[in-house]
Amino acid sequence: MSYPLLDTIHSPADLRRIPRGQLKNVADEVRDCVLQNVSRTGGHLSSNLGTVELTVALHYVFNTPDDRLVWDVGHQTYPHKILTGRRDRMPTLRQLGGLSGFPQRAESEYDTFGTAHSSTSISAALGMALASRQKGEGRHAVAIIGDGAMTAGMAFEALNNAGVENCKLLVVLNDNDMSISPPVGALNRYLAQLMSGQFYAAAKNVGKNVLKVAPPLFELARRLEQQAKGMVVPATLFEKFGFNYVGPIDGHDLESLIPTLENIKQLEGPQFLHVVTKKGHGYKLAEADPVAYHGPGKFDPAVGLVHPATQPKQTFTQVFGQWLCDMAEKDKRLVGITPAMREGSGMVEFHRRFPDRYYDVGIAEQHAVTFAAGLACEGLKPVVAIYSTFLQRAYDQLIHDVAIQKLPVVFALDRAGLVGADGATHAGNYDIAYLRTVPNVSVACPADERECRQLLTTAYEQDHPVAVRYPRGAGVGVQPLPGLDPLPFGKGEVRREGARVAILAFGSLLYPALEAAERLGVTVVNMRWVKPLDTELLMQVAASHDALVTVEEGAIMGGAGSAVGEALQAAGIVKPLLQLGLPDTFIEHGDPVKLLAMQGLDAKGIEASVRTRFADLLAPAAPSLKSVA
Amino acid sequence: MSYPLLDTIHSPADLRRIPRGQLKNVADEVRDCVLQNVSRTGGHLSSNLGTVELTVALHYVFNTPDDRLVWDVGHQTYPHKILTGRRDRMPTLRQLGGLSGFPQRAESEYDTFGTAHSSTSISAALGMALASRQKGEGRHAVAIIGDGAMTAGMAFEALNNAGVENCKLLVVLNDNDMSISPPVGALNRYLAQLMSGQFYAAAKNVGKNVLKVAPPLFELARRLEQQAKGMVVPATLFEKFGFNYVGPIDGHDLESLIPTLENIKQLEGPQFLHVVTKKGHGYKLAEADPVAYHGPGKFDPAVGLVHPATQPKQTFTQVFGQWLCDMAEKDKRLVGITPAMREGSGMVEFHRRFPDRYYDVGIAEQHAVTFAAGLACEGLKPVVAIYSTFLQRAYDQLIHDVAIQKLPVVFALDRAGLVGADGATHAGNYDIAYLRTVPNVSVACPADERECRQLLTTAYEQDHPVAVRYPRGAGVGVQPLPGLDPLPFGKGEVRREGARVAILAFGSLLYPALEAAERLGVTVVNMRWVKPLDTELLMQVAASHDALVTVEEGAIMGGAGSAVGEALQAAGIVKPLLQLGLPDTFIEHGDPVKLLAMQGLDAKGIEASVRTRFADLLAPAAPSLKSVA
Repeated sequence: MSYPLLDTIHSPADLRRIPRGQLKNVADEVRDCVLQNVSRTGGHLSSNLGTVELTVALHYVFNTPDDRLVWDVGHQTYPHKILTGRRDRMPTLRQLGGLSGFPQRAESEYDTFGTAHSSTSISAALGMALASRQKGEGRHAVAIIGDGAMTAGMAFEALNNAGVENCKLLVVLNDNDMSISPPVGALNRYLAQLMSGQFYAAAKNVGKNVLKVAPPLFELARRLEQQAKGMVVPATLFEKFGFNYVGPIDGHDLESLIPTLENIKQLEGPQFLHVVTKKGHGYKLAEADPVAYHGPGKFDPAVGLVHPATQPKQTFTQVFGQWLCDMAEKDKRLVGITPAMREGSGMVEFHRRFPDRYYDVGIAEQHAVTFAAGLACEGLKPVVAIYSTFLQRAYDQLIHDVAIQKLPVVFALDRAGLVGADGATHAGNYDIAYLRTVPNVSVACPADERECRQLLTTAYEQDHPVAVRYPRGAGVGVQPLPGLDPLPFGKGEVRREGARVAILAFGSLLYPALEAAERLGVTVVNMRWVKPLDTELLMQVAASHDALVTVEEGAIMGGAGSAVGEALQAAGIVKPLLQLGLPDTFIEHGDPVKLLAMQGLDAKGIEASVRTRFADLLAPAAPSLKSVA
Repeated sequence: MSYPLLDTIHSPADLRRIPRGQLKNVADEVRDCVLQNVSRTGGHLSSNLGTVELTVALHYVFNTPDDRLVWDVGHQTYPHKILTGRRDRMPTLRQLGGLSGFPQRAESEYDTFGTAHSSTSISAALGMALASRQKGEGRHAVAIIGDGAMTAGMAFEALNNAGVENCKLLVVLNDNDMSISPPVGALNRYLAQLMSGQFYAAAKNVGKNVLKVAPPLFELARRLEQQAKGMVVPATLFEKFGFNYVGPIDGHDLESLIPTLENIKQLEGPQFLHVVTKKGHGYKLAEADPVAYHGPGKFDPAVGLVHPATQPKQTFTQVFGQWLCDMAEKDKRLVGITPAMREGSGMVEFHRRFPDRYYDVGIAEQHAVTFAAGLACEGLKPVVAIYSTFLQRAYDQLIHDVAIQKLPVVFALDRAGLVGADGATHAGNYDIAYLRTVPNVSVACPADERECRQLLTTAYEQDHPVAVRYPRGAGVGVQPLPGLDPLPFGKGEVRREGARVAILAFGSLLYPALEAAERLGVTVVNMRWVKPLDTELLMQVAASHDALVTVEEGAIMGGAGSAVGEALQAAGIVKPLLQLGLPDTFIEHGDPVKLLAMQGLDAKGIEASVRTRFADLLAPAAPSLKSVA
C-alpha cells in the first residue's frame, strides 16, 4: 500500500517535520494502514483504531526515543509500530519471526518497555523517570494506560508512589467509550461521572479555548485551567494521589491533544492527562461492535467479519463454559469469578443465565482469588476462571488465602502451555511447577475435551483447592459426555500397552504421544493428575518397563516430569527417565502447532527423542509411510 | 494474673452483657493482659496496644461470631484472642503447639479468615458479605485494615469492587499515628491531611456530639453528620470508591466508637469508618518508640527493653545491609528498593547514607518489582530486598517485567525457608521451585555469612536477574570478608571428600550436612547455585559416587533436589538420589531449630535419613559420643 505522507515517515523525527496542519492526514493514513494490515494478518483492531491520534500526538510532542513512551498492555501499539520504522514489517505481525503484537525492547529502541499483561506501565515509567532524575537527564517518561488497566491494584501502587515524587512523569489515561462493556467497579463508575453530561462539555471547552494559548501565556493558562477545573470538579481522585489532573479531552482531536501535551510537558511534577477515545474509531463496523473487532482474524474490510461457513471445533474454553452452566444449574452454591475475561474464559452464557452468581472483578487477579476464598469460607463453591499466565498475578493469594486454609476453590486454568500469537508474555508454561510446590493444592491435566469436563467435576467435588489446566483452542475432538460424572480423583489410566518403554503423558500431548507410541511399540499412560500423582500406577508401570518418558506442555524445570522423578526416587526406584516438555527459554509468538513441533512436542518429535535416548531398548524405526511413498 | 472483669468474660457474648459504663475498665484489663503476656512470651506489642478499644467496641456492637470480623495482617489480634476465650492460652503464643500470632480458622470460630500477609481483608470480607447476601443471611462482615496495608494494590482492587455492591460490608481503617514512621506515598499524605488540624478536631466533635444521639434520631443524625462532613471535606477518596465515609474518630474513645459503630451497623451499602489510633497506646515506653516495641522479645514491663549484655550474632539481614552500603559506595548506579520492610531487610543504614537511592514503595510488592525493571532499563542497578514469602506477591512481575526482558535486577530474598514464630504464612519454602522454573533467572543459596556477601556481589555483577536466598536469623558465624570479591558464577565446591555417597547441600544446611558426613564418612559438596546448576561438578561427583543426597531448606517438590534429578536424567545418568528438604505440608509456628529437627533437617536427621536409605553403601554407625558417655 502506498500512503503519500507515511511514505515520507521512517521515524518519529520525520513525523515531527510534518506541518501540524497535515497531521490529521497522517492519522488518516495510519488508521487505514492499521485496518488494511490487521484485516490481512488478524490481530488487535479496535484498540489500535482508538489510539491513532494519541500516538501521532505523543510522538509529535515528545522527543522519542529519548523521551520514553510506555504503552500499557501494548496491544494498541500498531500505530506506534507504523510510525517508528516498522511499517514494512506489519504484514509479519504475530507470526513466527515477525513483529510482536506487543512492544518488545529487542524489537525497537522505541519500545522502551515490554508489555502485554496489564497495569505495569506506571511502575515502569516511574522507574524511568526517577532514573532520569538520578542521572541528571531531562527526559520525560509517559505511561499510556487504559481505564480497564486502572482497576488493577498495581496501577494504584504506582500512582501512590508517583504522586509524591518530583519527576517528569506523565500518565495518560486512555479512557475508552464507557458503553462498550458493562462498567466494572467503582472506578469505572467514577470515570463515567467525570465524563458525563455538562462536565465533559465544559472541560472540552477548557481544552479547546484555554489550553491553546501561546507558550508565553502558559502560566496564566494553567491557572485559568485550574480554576475552570475547580468549578466543575473540586478535586479528582487522581489529584488526591498527588497528580496534576488535566482533562478529560477528546483523544481523537489533534487540535486538543497536541497543545495540551505541549503545555503539560512544561509542568513540574507528576501529570495526569485524561483522554477520551472510542475503540474502533474511524471504522464503522468496529465502532458498532468493538468487542467483536477486539481481536479478529482475517477479514475483508469492505465486508467486515463473516460467520465461518463450517462450525469451528469446540474449544476447551467452550467446554468449560458449558460445564460451568450445567454445574451451576445443579448446585446453587456455585459462584463464577473472572478477572475481566468473560469472553476469553467462556463465561458469557453463565453471566446471562446466572447474573447473581457471576462476578467480574475487573483486572484484579489478587482480589479475585482472595474474594473467592472469602466466599468459600461461607460455604459457597467458587470457580475462578483464569488464564494460567494471569494466575501468576495471584500466586501469593493462592498460597496464603486459599491453600493454607485448604479452601475448596476450583481454578479453571485456560491457556496452559504455549499460546501462539501472543507469545512469551502470555505463555502458561510455569503453572505446574509453581502450583505443585504448594501444599494442599491439586493439579489436573485433561487430555481432551471429554476429560476436561469430567475433571472439572472431579475438582468441584473436592474439599480443597484444585486447578484444572487446559490448553488454548480446540482439542482432538473427543465429545464431552452430557452428564456431570467425575473421573476418579488422582488416578490415571493405561491407554496403550507396549514393551520396554512407557510414556507418561500429562494433558493434551497424550495424543501425539499415542501416535508416537504406535510407531515405537511402547506403552502410553494418561496420567491426568500432576498432583496428587498416581504413584500406585506409576510404580506398576515402573516395575514392568525398563525406562520411562514423561510428556507435558509445560516447563520441564519443576514440571510433571520432575514430579515423576521425585516419586521414583522417594520409592527408591532407580530408572532411566526422559523428561520431555518446554525448555528453559522464553518462546516467542507464532503458530502454536509449529512452535510445539519446534520443541519436539509433536508425534514426530516425541518419537525422535525417545528413539535417540532409548535406542538400545527399541526395535529400529520402520520406514515411515511418507518415506515409503 | 487475675482481672475482675476479664475473669467473667469467656466469650464476646459475656462481653456484651457488661454494662457500657464498665467497658473502659474491660479495655484497661485487656491492655494490661496483653502487656503482661507479651513481655513474657515476646510477640507483637505496639499494634495490639493500639487496637484494644477498637476490639472491645467491635465485639460489643457486632454479634460475633455470626457477624464476621476479618483482621488485616492479624498481628493485632491479641485483644481479640483474649476476648474470644483464649486468654488462658496466651502464655503459649507463637510457640510450638501454642496459639498462633495471627488469626487462624482452625484455632477459633471467631477467626473467620486466616491473615498474616497484608491487605487481604477487604477482599475476604467482601466475599463473606456477598455470600451472606446470596444465602439470604443478614450477617455483617467487617474488615479492619491499617493505613500501611491500604497502600497495597489489592486493597484498592477490593475497594473498587465493594463500592458498587449493596451488601453489609464495613471497612474500618485503623489509622495509626502518622508520626511513627516516615509517611510513604500519596495515600499516607492524604490521610494525614484528613486528620490534620481543625478538620480532625471538627470531625471529632461530630463524632462526640452528633453520633451519640439515640437510635430514633438516627436518620437525622446521619444527615447532620453528612452535612458536617461536607463542610470539612467535600468528598473523600473513599467516597469516590462508592463507600459511605465516616470519620476520622478517636479509636481509643469507646464513647465515640460504640455509638458510631451502632449507627453504621444500620446503614445500607458499603461503609467506611476511619479510626485514628496510636500504636503502643497506654504503655508509655511503646508510645515513645513504637518501632522498637513492634515485635519485642521478653522484657520487664517496669523496665522496658534493655540492650543485651552480649552482642548477638550477626544475622544474614545485617550481612546484606552492610553489603548494600559497601556496594552503593563503590557503584553509584546501585538503587535499593524495599516494600515497607526497611528495618526487617536491614536497610536503615543504607537509607541514612544514600537517601536519594533508597525507595520504600510501601506495601506494594508488585510495583516494587516493575519499578525496579523500569530503573534497570535506564542502566541503574536495582537491588530489591524482599522476603521470600512476599516475592510471591510479585511473581508475575518477576516473570513478565524482569525475566522476559532479562533485566539485571538483584533480588535479596530474606527469610528463605522456615521462619519460626510467624509460621506457615511467612514460610519461604517455595522460592526455589517458583524461581527456577522461570527462564533467565538465577538462584544462589549462600551457606553462611561470608558466602552471602560474596554471592550478592556475584549476583550484582550479572547482566540478568539473580535471586540470592538466605535464611532468617544468624548463620554459623563465618565472618564476611571485608572486600567486594565475588564467588564464581554458577559454581559449587567440594567441602569434604568421602566415599560411596555424596551429599549436595544447597544453602545453610551445608553445616549440619558436614556434621552428618563426618559420622557417615561421605562426601559433601557446597552447591551454592540452584540455577544455573553446576552440572560439571555434579557429573564429576556422580561419576565417583554410588549415590547422591540433596539437602535444602525448601520444599522438596520442584526444589533443588528436583533440579539435580533433572540434570542427571538429562545427562542419562541413572543413580540413586535421596532428596531431603521440606515436606508437602504447611508447617506451623515454633522454634525454627526445633522445627528443622522435626523435619529431619539437622545433622542427626540427615545422618539418619542417609543411613536408612543407603545402609548397604555405608559402614555401620559408630556409637555416638553421647551414648558412649
